[in-house]
Order: sequence, then C-alpha cells, then structure tokens
Amino acid sequence: MPNDLTVRVLDALDSARADTEASLIEWLRIPSVSAQPAHAADCRHAAEWLVRELAALGFEARLRETAGHPVVIASHPGPQASPGKEVPHVLIYGHYDVQPPEPLELWNSPPFEPTLTEGPRGPRITARGAVDDKGQVMTWLAALRAWHKVAGGPPVRVTVLVEGEEEIGSPSLDPVLEAEKAALSADVALISDTNMWAPGVPALTVSLRGMVYTQIDLRLGDRDLHSGLFGGSALNVLNLLTKILGELKDENGRVRIPGFYDNIPEPTAEQRAAWDALGFDEAAFLGNQGMSTPGGEKGRSAPERLWARPTADINGIWGGYMGEGTKTVIACEGHAKLSCRLVPGQDPAKIVEGIRQFVQSRLPPDASFTLQVFGEAPAVAVPPDSPWLAAAEAVLAEEFGRPAVRAGGGGSIPVASSLKSILGLDCLMMGFGLDDDQVHSPNEKFELSCLHSGARSHVRLLGRLGGR
Amino acid sequence: MPNDLTVRVLDALDSARADTEASLIEWLRIPSVSAQPAHAADCRHAAEWLVRELAALGFEARLRETAGHPVVIASHPGPQASPGKEVPHVLIYGHYDVQPPEPLELWNSPPFEPTLTEGPRGPRITARGAVDDKGQVMTWLAALRAWHKVAGGPPVRVTVLVEGEEEIGSPSLDPVLEAEKAALSADVALISDTNMWAPGVPALTVSLRGMVYTQIDLRLGDRDLHSGLFGGSALNVLNLLTKILGELKDENGRVRIPGFYDNIPEPTAEQRAAWDALGFDEAAFLGNQGMSTPGGEKGRSAPERLWARPTADINGIWGGYMGEGTKTVIACEGHAKLSCRLVPGQDPAKIVEGIRQFVQSRLPPDASFTLQVFGEAPAVAVPPDSPWLAAAEAVLAEEFGRPAVRAGGGGSIPVASSLKSILGLDCLMMGFGLDDDQVHSPNEKFELSCLHSGARSHVRLLGRLGGR
Repeated sequence: MPNDLTVRVLDALDSARADTEASLIEWLRIPSVSAQPAHAADCRHAAEWLVRELAALGFEARLRETAGHPVVIASHPGPQASPGKEVPHVLIYGHYDVQPPEPLELWNSPPFEPTLTEGPRGPRITARGAVDDKGQVMTWLAALRAWHKVAGGPPVRVTVLVEGEEEIGSPSLDPVLEAEKAALSADVALISDTNMWAPGVPALTVSLRGMVYTQIDLRLGDRDLHSGLFGGSALNVLNLLTKILGELKDENGRVRIPGFYDNIPEPTAEQRAAWDALGFDEAAFLGNQGMSTPGGEKGRSAPERLWARPTADINGIWGGYMGEGTKTVIACEGHAKLSCRLVPGQDPAKIVEGIRQFVQSRLPPDASFTLQVFGEAPAVAVPPDSPWLAAAEAVLAEEFGRPAVRAGGGGSIPVASSLKSILGLDCLMMGFGLDDDQVHSPNEKFELSCLHSGARSHVRLLGRLGGR
Repeated sequence: MPNDLTVRVLDALDSARADTEASLIEWLRIPSVSAQPAHAADCRHAAEWLVRELAALGFEARLRETAGHPVVIASHPGPQASPGKEVPHVLIYGHYDVQPPEPLELWNSPPFEPTLTEGPRGPRITARGAVDDKGQVMTWLAALRAWHKVAGGPPVRVTVLVEGEEEIGSPSLDPVLEAEKAALSADVALISDTNMWAPGVPALTVSLRGMVYTQIDLRLGDRDLHSGLFGGSALNVLNLLTKILGELKDENGRVRIPGFYDNIPEPTAEQRAAWDALGFDEAAFLGNQGMSTPGGEKGRSAPERLWARPTADINGIWGGYMGEGTKTVIACEGHAKLSCRLVPGQDPAKIVEGIRQFVQSRLPPDASFTLQVFGEAPAVAVPPDSPWLAAAEAVLAEEFGRPAVRAGGGGSIPVASSLKSILGLDCLMMGFGLDDDQVHSPNEKFELSCLHSGARSHVRLLGRLGGR
C-alpha cells in the first residue's frame, strides 16, 4: 500500500490531468522526425522543450551535443539523504524523436496537430509520437511534477536520459554513454516504451528482441533496357531481386539466412506452459488489423513467435518504372530494405554477414550488390528475480487491481543493450501503450486513460523505491 | 537499278540533308509524352506540326480526334493514273508520341533539347524520340519532300497514319481504324519502327512479338504495422509479393504462368538453321550493356529467345518505406508491373487470365489483389513470299550494297496486328534504328547516317513500287 505522502502525490497528479494533457499536446506539435534532415531544427526544439520542463522541477538539465541530434541529460539529487540510508538512483530513459508520418493521406487528422477524439474506451490523443515515445515520457514527467509539487522533489535520485535518434537506430548514443559514464551512473534504468497486456491489464516487459536493419542495392547491367529488344536475352534485375527475396523463407516460415538460428536456445517446457497460460488471443490480435491467418514459423505459439523467435521482414522494395501506366523497361537497379528482429543467442554482426551471404550466393555473374547496414542491436533479457521487477509488480497490482503480466517484447529498444553493456544497468520496462495504438502507422494514438494510469503507476513506483 | 527520276529524287534528298536534320530537331523539341497527362497539349502540338508539314506537300491532312490523343490522317492521290495502270497504294504508319524520359538525372543532355554529338560512327542526334519514333517518321517525311520537290508528289498513292498513343498501348486507335476504314484502305502498310541488323547492314523485320502489360496490386491487412509488435505473427505483403514473383520462372528460365506455352509451335530445323546462319553475336549484344550471361530459356539460341519465345519481365516494383534510412514497418500494400512479350499461338486474353491464376493460386486467405491490364496485342508474322518484301529487299540491297537480313523483332508494334485484323493490311517493316540507340532509356539517339540512308531507302522504295 502506498503511504500517506504517495497518496497526496497521487491526488496532486490527478488534479493536474488537464495540464498533463495540454503539456503533451504542446510537445507533440513539434515535428521531431529524426530520419528526415529537414526536421533537424524541430528535433532540437523538442529537446529544448524537455530541458526547460525538467529545469522547472529543480533538475540540472542540459542539452548534450552529439554528431547528430542532441541528448537531454538531467539530474536531481532526490531528497536529503538520511544518515546510513542510501537512496536508490534511477535513470529514466526515453526518446523525443518520432517516426516519419508518411503516408500523410491516410491520417484522419494532421500528424503534428494533436487531436482529441472519443474512442471506445474513452478519449485519446492522435498524433505522431502520441505514444511512441512522447506520451510515455510524459507519464514520467507528470509523475515528477507531482512529486515536485507535493514533496519538493522525487523521493529517489533521478537521472533523465532522453535522446533524439531512437527511431533511426541511435547512432550517436553509445559514444555519449561512454563519455558520460559518471553523469549517467545509476542503480537501474526505467524505460517506458512498451505496451500493456490489454486495456486495463498492465505488463512488465522482461525481454526485448534485437534488430539488424539493412538495405540491399542490386545492380545488373549498365543501363535500363527496352524489354522487347532485350527480353529473352538480358537478365532482369527485378526478376532477380524477387527471386532472391522470395527464397527468404521456406514453406514452414523458417528463414533461410545462413546461420540464422545458430545458438538460439529452445524454450523450456516450463516457459512454453507460461506462455500458453497467458491466453494470448492471436485471432483478435490479427483480427484488429484485418488479418486472420498467422505468419511466422509453423508449430510455435504466438507469444513464442512474437517474443522468442527471430524474423525477416521486407520493409520496403522499389525499382524500375513506378509511375502511371506503362514503361516497357528492363531496369538495371533494384532495392529492398530488409530487417530482422533478433533473440538471445543471435549475434547481430553474424546475422548481417548471413544476409550478405544469402544474397551473394544467389547472384548470377553479372549482378553486383551492396549491403547498407543502418542498425545492429542484440536482444535483451531482464533477470527474472530482479528486485526492481518485484517493486514494479507491486505498484502495478495496486494501481490496476490485478497482477501485471510478465511479457516478452516483440519490438527492439537497442538502447537497452547499450545501457547494459556500457553503463551496467538492467532495464525495468513498464509501459502503457496498447496494441491498437498504431505505432509506426498513420493515426498513432495514446489513450488518456493510459497516460494517466501510467503517470500514477510511476508516482507509486518512485514512492515505493524511495521508501515513501 | 533506280531509274533516272528516282536518281534525281535521291540527289534532291541528299541536297536537303541539313533541312531534314533541322526539321527533325524542331519536332523533337516538343515533349509529346503520351503516358503523362501533363503533356497532353504537347502531344497535340506534335500532331499539328506533322499535319502542317504534310499539307505543304500537297497532302489532304487532318487531325482525327479521339478519346485520347489525336491521330494524324493524311492522303495524297499520287501521280495521274495512266489508263489501265493501277498505282499501288501504301499506308505509312508511325507515332509522334514518345516514352517518358525519366530518370532525368541520367541524361547527358536534356531529353527535349536535341543535341548533336560525334559518335564512333559519325554524328548523332540525342533526344527522347530521336529514333523511336520521330526520327524514323522523318525518314518518310524527307523522302516524300524529295519526291514532291522533283516530281510534284509521290509515285504511288500514299496515306499517312501517325498516332499519339503507341507508347501507352494505342488505346484509342482501334475505334479509329474501324470508323475510318474507307479513308485508310490501302494495299500494304509500311512501318519504320524497327532496327537494322547492324551498322551498315539493313534488316527487314518479318515477325513481331505481341504483348500483355499488367499491374499487380496486392493487399494484406488494413494498415501498415510495427514490425516488432507484429513480426512473427502478421504476414508481410512484401515478403508475399516477392515470393509470388520469385516463382515466375523455374531454374531453366521457363515461365510458370499457367497455359503460357500452349499452342506455341516449335521452330522447324530449317528455321533454326536460318537463325544459326545469322551469326548473332550475343556476347557483343549483351556486352554493350554491361552483361555477359544470357537469360531466357536454356537450350535455345539468342535469335529464337529474342524473336520466337515469350517473356515475363517485371518492369517496376514498389511498396513499403522507400525513403532515407529506416522505417520498421510491415506494409499493407505492394505493387508490380509485369509484362509479357508474346509469340504466334498465344492469345493475349488467355495470358492475362494465366497471370491472374498464377497470382491468385499463391495468395494466403487474407491477401487480395487486383490485376490492371494496360495493353494486349497478339504477335504478328509477315508472309515470307510477300511481293512487298521482295521489293524492299531489292531497294535495301541497292542502297547498302549488300543483302538485307530477314530478322524477327523482339519488340511489339501492337498496331501491326490491328492493321491486319481491322484493315486487312500486311505490314512491311523496314527500319533504321540500331541496337545501341538506347530506346526507352536515357540518352536515346539516332545516327545521322541512319536517318539519311533510311530516307534514301524510302525514296527508292516509292520509286520501285511506282514503277519509276
């Protein structure tokens, strides 16, 4: 049970709901799209916004410059330490950058004009970044504001680390972590960038998949050719590209990249039973997206395929004539973006090499290709007996009136592996998104109920960790 | 041997070379791109230009309106007929529209600013349409100008039919041919839209491949999805698209579209020997394009694969994220343009149905697709004992000092089948393009030597057919 101080902080938070929503809306207006150089200034503005907000709460907050977008680093010493009593030190991680909004024509409201609408479960905010990740960072900011208002500050030492390149693979982050080890030291990292199990059912994400993201650029011939004059003699790079990528998986959904499955442990019977006990409703999960038939490897359950098995997805493909009508061309270039989600045991560098071999071994003599690598990060697993997990489970049960689900995460938060490998921090991943929030899609939204119960959960967690 | 009148016409033609080149350059400046609605007015201007030029030669010339771009129809009665002597009536076909010039950045000079440069075999004009087809139509226009200057008009009855939609499948032409049967009646159609065998070696094209051109629009799911949250559960439309198209051909280059090879006659041993005797140098043919290894069906010679076997080429493909960097998306739509060159025996409508079945039979339950059909035309074969062929062979031998090669055409001129089926006309196909003219590619060019020897050949042919 929360003690009296925490209850008062919760009350203050509840009273400030309108301010919390207005604050998030203000931050969402800034089109901080990290993947598009035209928005570099907007990224900086989004970072500066957060620096100001944290400074107003007594944090020492600064913009840490990088070769790319700046990183927000802020720290608060917490309460006066009682003699002999050490105060826990948490590091809150998030990102202020957002995915590109395209395709624009599919949005019901403009992606950077946050719009409140009424949904089946109550009101929600629709905007790019509404949940991923500004809305989730706001659950922390609102909690810190409430602690500041009632108690003058948080009940633990707090460091805030909010970067601007998560959506593009965080290229500038690791050097910052290396250089700022002292400033970023802490006992545990807290990340809100994952989902609840279901509306009203909280989750703790205890594993994350890793990722490699590549682009295949294939070339065959010096120039585009006339398909009548050359068809039947010249090889066609787009026929080749589809043939290669069409062999990516066998009829059982197994990926044919060499070495792909090396060192991936088979789950224990116990783990499989735990997954089965979740009652994951794949029919509803896919049904919400207009699908009925699952993909992935045959013979494995949905939680296993989503959390503990790797994937190979083509994210984009292009080449030849893409305009109106006809052009009878045999193109000389074709391209595809291919990314793989990874699980513990897989080495990102070896997977990249496997992709390279997979393509190279299927090339006829005249074809050449380059492989661009945009990002590499291994999978992450949280120790199941972590005391931080136990604290989080307690506060989530209090807030939601039912136990949290220990779930795997299908997505990747590459920074989680960097925080572990460079700063030695385990990550506690307690997030408040929902599966139908349409992250990375048009009409991304965040339920207001999730925003507020997330902030309340964070108020409780800080209180519990601080012994308050 | 040409008679005295024809010799004088040849001299007049030679004296007018600079005017011929200037006239072609003027016509090439007009960006008559039929596939792009933004250029509709330019198409009309290119047609009007030709009407004026023919009217100046005593033709009754008009713009025949259609649902799309207008058709130029012009006629000249020829010489006063001697009693008892019937004058042959030829119909000259061409097209004033051109292919889209994209990608623009690969042109050495702007596609609609015709540029004269010196090449290995002499000067050439570089522009979109330089050879396909304005340059080749100019070989006729220059010949008619010379006959007009010396003899007051051509020595045969001449009808000119120049349309503006050949590059987009001539959708408006058949209704015009049906409606204008009287105005378009003739003894033979003359088409200059094919190639010489080699520099200095003329060819008569005695067969053309047909074509079907389709677009596959594949859909799976209601919206784009996050590849982490859904990868391993949701099917991916781009993985599906590549798998389907990757199965288009087997390891021997044989196309798997159902019914594709039905009713295609195997060539006779005699035909194969004739092809072998051509000494077609495929290594050089492909080597000029930066390739060394042929595609097409194993075990067949290059002339057979290029002229007498059907193809299935992907002309364009697109879907998902195609911008800079990364977007971890599972798209819900993918598209491809797929066209097939056809040979005698294949029914275009059946091939379209085969494509439909090929895709449909490979779709999982959640996927849907539409097939757009942009064009359908059967293959064409010219009777080998045609007297028109014999006349053409004679004049080409005179002009070039060596026999013409009877070659198949790899490309399609769908109008040739329409001229046969609707107007009952066989087509004589005598063209002056070269394999390295880069038709349908950036930096399309026409050698001035081909322009002038083509016009000279046409002067000779008109003279021979008119008994002059």
